[in-house]
Amino acid sequence: MEIGLVGLGQMGAAMARRILAASHGLRVWNRSEEKAAPLVASGAKAVKTPREAADGDLVISMLANDHAVEEVVLGADGIVAGLRGVHVSSSTISVELARKLTEAHPLGKLVSGCVFGRPAAAEDGKLFVVAAGDPAAVDECGPAFDAIGQRTFYVGPDPYMANLVKIIGNFMIATTIETLGEAFALARKNGVEASKLLEVLSGTLFGAPVVKTYGELIVSGVYDPPGFRLPLGLKDVKLVLAAGEASEVPLPLASLLRDQFLDALAHGGQDVDWAALAEVSARAAGLE
Amino acid sequence: MEIGLVGLGQMGAAMARRILAASHGLRVWNRSEEKAAPLVASGAKAVKTPREAADGDLVISMLANDHAVEEVVLGADGIVAGLRGVHVSSSTISVELARKLTEAHPLGKLVSGCVFGRPAAAEDGKLFVVAAGDPAAVDECGPAFDAIGQRTFYVGPDPYMANLVKIIGNFMIATTIETLGEAFALARKNGVEASKLLEVLSGTLFGAPVVKTYGELIVSGVYDPPGFRLPLGLKDVKLVLAAGEASEVPLPLASLLRDQFLDALAHGGQDVDWAALAEVSARAAGLE
Amino acid sequence: MEIGLVGLGQMGAAMARRILAASHGLRVWNRSEEKAAPLVASGAKAVKTPREAADGDLVISMLANDHAVEEVVLGADGIVAGLRGVHVSSSTISVELARKLTEAHPLGKLVSGCVFGRPAAAEDGKLFVVAAGDPAAVDECGPAFDAIGQRTFYVGPDPYMANLVKIIGNFMIATTIETLGEAFALARKNGVEASKLLEVLSGTLFGAPVVKTYGELIVSGVYDPPGFRLPLGLKDVKLVLAAGEASEVPLPLASLLRDQFLDALAHGGQDVDWAALAEVSARAAGLE
Amino acid sequence: MEIGLVGLGQMGAAMARRILAASHGLRVWNRSEEKAAPLVASGAKAVKTPREAADGDLVISMLANDHAVEEVVLGADGIVAGLRGVHVSSSTISVELARKLTEAHPLGKLVSGCVFGRPAAAEDGKLFVVAAGDPAAVDECGPAFDAIGQRTFYVGPDPYMANLVKIIGNFMIATTIETLGEAFALARKNGVEASKLLEVLSGTLFGAPVVKTYGELIVSGVYDPPGFRLPLGLKDVKLVLAAGEASEVPLPLASLLRDQFLDALAHGGQDVDWAALAEVSARAAGLE
Repeated sequence: MEIGLVGLGQMGAAMARRILAASHGLRVWNRSEEKAAPLVASGAKAVKTPREAADGDLVISMLANDHAVEEVVLGADGIVAGLRGVHVSSSTISVELARKLTEAHPLGKLVSGCVFGRPAAAEDGKLFVVAAGDPAAVDECGPAFDAIGQRTFYVGPDPYMANLVKIIGNFMIATTIETLGEAFALARKNGVEASKLLEVLSGTLFGAPVVKTYGELIVSGVYDPPGFRLPLGLKDVKLVLAAGEASEVPLPLASLLRDQFLDALAHGGQDVDWAALAEVSARAAGLE
Repeated sequence: MEIGLVGLGQMGAAMARRILAASHGLRVWNRSEEKAAPLVASGAKAVKTPREAADGDLVISMLANDHAVEEVVLGADGIVAGLRGVHVSSSTISVELARKLTEAHPLGKLVSGCVFGRPAAAEDGKLFVVAAGDPAAVDECGPAFDAIGQRTFYVGPDPYMANLVKIIGNFMIATTIETLGEAFALARKNGVEASKLLEVLSGTLFGAPVVKTYGELIVSGVYDPPGFRLPLGLKDVKLVLAAGEASEVPLPLASLLRDQFLDALAHGGQDVDWAALAEVSARAAGLE
Repeated sequence: MEIGLVGLGQMGAAMARRILAASHGLRVWNRSEEKAAPLVASGAKAVKTPREAADGDLVISMLANDHAVEEVVLGADGIVAGLRGVHVSSSTISVELARKLTEAHPLGKLVSGCVFGRPAAAEDGKLFVVAAGDPAAVDECGPAFDAIGQRTFYVGPDPYMANLVKIIGNFMIATTIETLGEAFALARKNGVEASKLLEVLSGTLFGAPVVKTYGELIVSGVYDPPGFRLPLGLKDVKLVLAAGEASEVPLPLASLLRDQFLDALAHGGQDVDWAALAEVSARAAGLE
Repeated sequence: MEIGLVGLGQMGAAMARRILAASHGLRVWNRSEEKAAPLVASGAKAVKTPREAADGDLVISMLANDHAVEEVVLGADGIVAGLRGVHVSSSTISVELARKLTEAHPLGKLVSGCVFGRPAAAEDGKLFVVAAGDPAAVDECGPAFDAIGQRTFYVGPDPYMANLVKIIGNFMIATTIETLGEAFALARKNGVEASKLLEVLSGTLFGAPVVKTYGELIVSGVYDPPGFRLPLGLKDVKLVLAAGEASEVPLPLASLLRDQFLDALAHGGQDVDWAALAEVSARAAGLE
């Protein structure tokens, strides 16, 4: 299959390596060209514009935010301008932009294929793919999804649906961090070790990867280097709030998270992992 | 081992059956005597007072709330009055009462042994036990804990510590319900099926029993008969808030839960499962 | 008129002086007897028990909290035991206790007569009285209310109604403080002087005494000595939350206040004026 | 003085009439031209572009939102393109846009002159003006401010400061509505008439116009026709949240308001007065 990949950040590059490993043809594009070099050494072809990257069976975009997606997808030399097959949008973007992208694509040719998993999972092809769009188009993406992920979930016929599920997932991670932050603050101030509490939680009803991963980060108190930066967490909570606002859905948990994120940022949370959100609860409780 | 069991509700009776099955001697007491009959038929001895039930190697109490515990443990014919060995307090009670009980017991003779798990798990001896108290006393409880549970967690030397962990656990279940409620409301109002969202959540980062159990309940929309009644959920959130207040720990999530519980109660939530808390978010979003 | 006054704290003593000034007969009782001395010097008669204080046309109680009221009103030598006329309960108590007191009094003989105003206003007879109870009984209180207050509001036939209005008033003061705290934090962090903002607010739509009084306190940043201690503010917010809970009324603002109070207490707020609640918002914003 | 007025909505038109009444020369512009006719009949001169309106001693803009302001002020035929004197921006806009406008104006020539007051007050010249900007430029606006308002507050040298104070004012009105909504819900569900409660509040510590105005609206339960439409209230709360976010200031009250506004919108609140926010609390409490 001839696949294009637009956006070679940490996740995009890992996905590119998986696609090459699966023996697909790959054309890559990135704003700063040097990121393409190692992939070219492994057999990819570097192209000059997103438009050229789109000139294959499938093109995947994996970009930082709404602004980058608008430019790279809808610009004069953008993906839509050159689209020959299906465009898989994997970026975490707003529901609003996803709807706008759908309008701008030929009917049925946009698939939202959002992914869950940290970069390490991407390297191992162990991402989870959440896909939405025209069923036939999603079927065409099968080989690509198989290359990058361990399992694909189909959530509906309109592409924005996958974007919504993606940001809901991130909202739920942030809620888990906040919950652990409050629980650990209460435990610690009452003389119970956070690690003991976490052991019980993980070992009983709350044995999900998210509790273990973030619980251990918070117990360690080491938030640097960040796996996912705190301001990005705020960005995603705001995407959820925006989706709620557009559809008139109050989301008091998301509102609370937003305020806690701002508190964290006002106390030096710019460059740390978003697990540091838990420090807000500790500080409010007067813990050092 | 000669064990007493005080309080033969759904959980207490299941624990009693496990203890008999493990070939321990068992003396039982319950406020309404007829609950003891089937256990007596299986070999237990019914006694007239909690005081008599305490006249063995170990006595376990499993009661409904603070009020019942105060009476049955500290009353004239209560457990403390007759205590010969160790008293395992398994009731979900306030941290404040746990501290008061500790004062009222001979030094080291109170163990808080709280349990996680639904009644069905108790029947199978699959509860999780969270224990706190004097290490030697907790050791003495080993045979009893092995009879009722699949694993015991030791969380600290002061009995109230297990009670705190227990109510934090219930707080986290309630938070999970609230999170799912908001997430499903947002998904549904945007045309995404809640069952699809749940499939993604359970299949990726949120694969904990609590997400699966409560997610399925909310997707079904059937909250009757209740596994755990909604007003009891409010009671436990209030125990967490009280613990937070006593130790000056703000818990904005718990506060939010309290308000949502009241909204649920104001809309007929008296006799339903606490998963119905999710309906509050749906109603606020104007969903039917 | 022969009036008894039970409870000679700052407010009670001021009310006693106004009653003497209005030429009524006055019998006084206080737990610690020395508080009665200056009033006896002005013509009051000190009695040994609340029961004796109640042996006149009218007895007013002004006590610190539910616990004190239960003892002094319902105890063996309490007010109800000796009540000859009408009992005016002026203490800030829970709705629940107010209902219980109503049950314990002869029909129609309890009037809740709560007061708004700082001690200085009490000295000048400038309190506002919020009264509820049997209309005829409230009428009998006229001369006493005229002595202590500038205006009486009648809010309903059941005594607890005045207690509810009183705690709602205190809830609204706390909300005002919180609102000013957030507004000032936002202004200050954006380079706008809080005093300028307050000048606009007071001079336009928000020209209520409560905005001016608490706004100036917060602008000054001086919370010591306290006019009304912060923990008492939390106590009253909890009374509102309890009333909301008993009647299944979610009160998200009151819940928010509760958490902010706890944050304040966790940061040394024990002995300051409740206007210091505003510091919580400043701290969350990273202001010094 | 030769004054331009751009934007002839309800407020802008009332301000125009006051300026004419004060014998200033007035040139007016509005997107839909017919709104200018009655003013021309009273002596104003209609111009074709905002640019022409700016060709006098002073030009005032009073527009609906950020979008309109950007176009009308910064567009090719906009105010800045033709500015000869001082531009008074009276629109309720974001702090971010106010900063951008300041950059786009000649140094010191932008004054933010926000107003408080309903349209009826504008007709009577009884608005309150909150001004910020270069002191000399603000002085030049004196005659215009005197024509439209009863009092001018100067809040700082940077124009955005007045915009911030304006949106904080609207945030505080919304908070007042929410507070009254919760208080009335609690009172009503406990049998206390909301009108009685309002009488006490207005007559004692909360005697501000905002409490009286909105309290009476809520007691009446009549929200149509709207004085200020509910969605505009949400818009302003969002401006406050945006200002808080940009400066890292958590604003939990504003977050709560946002959710309550969404609840109101999800229940038909599109075309009613924002006092209808109080219905959200009533509904949550199960009141019909």
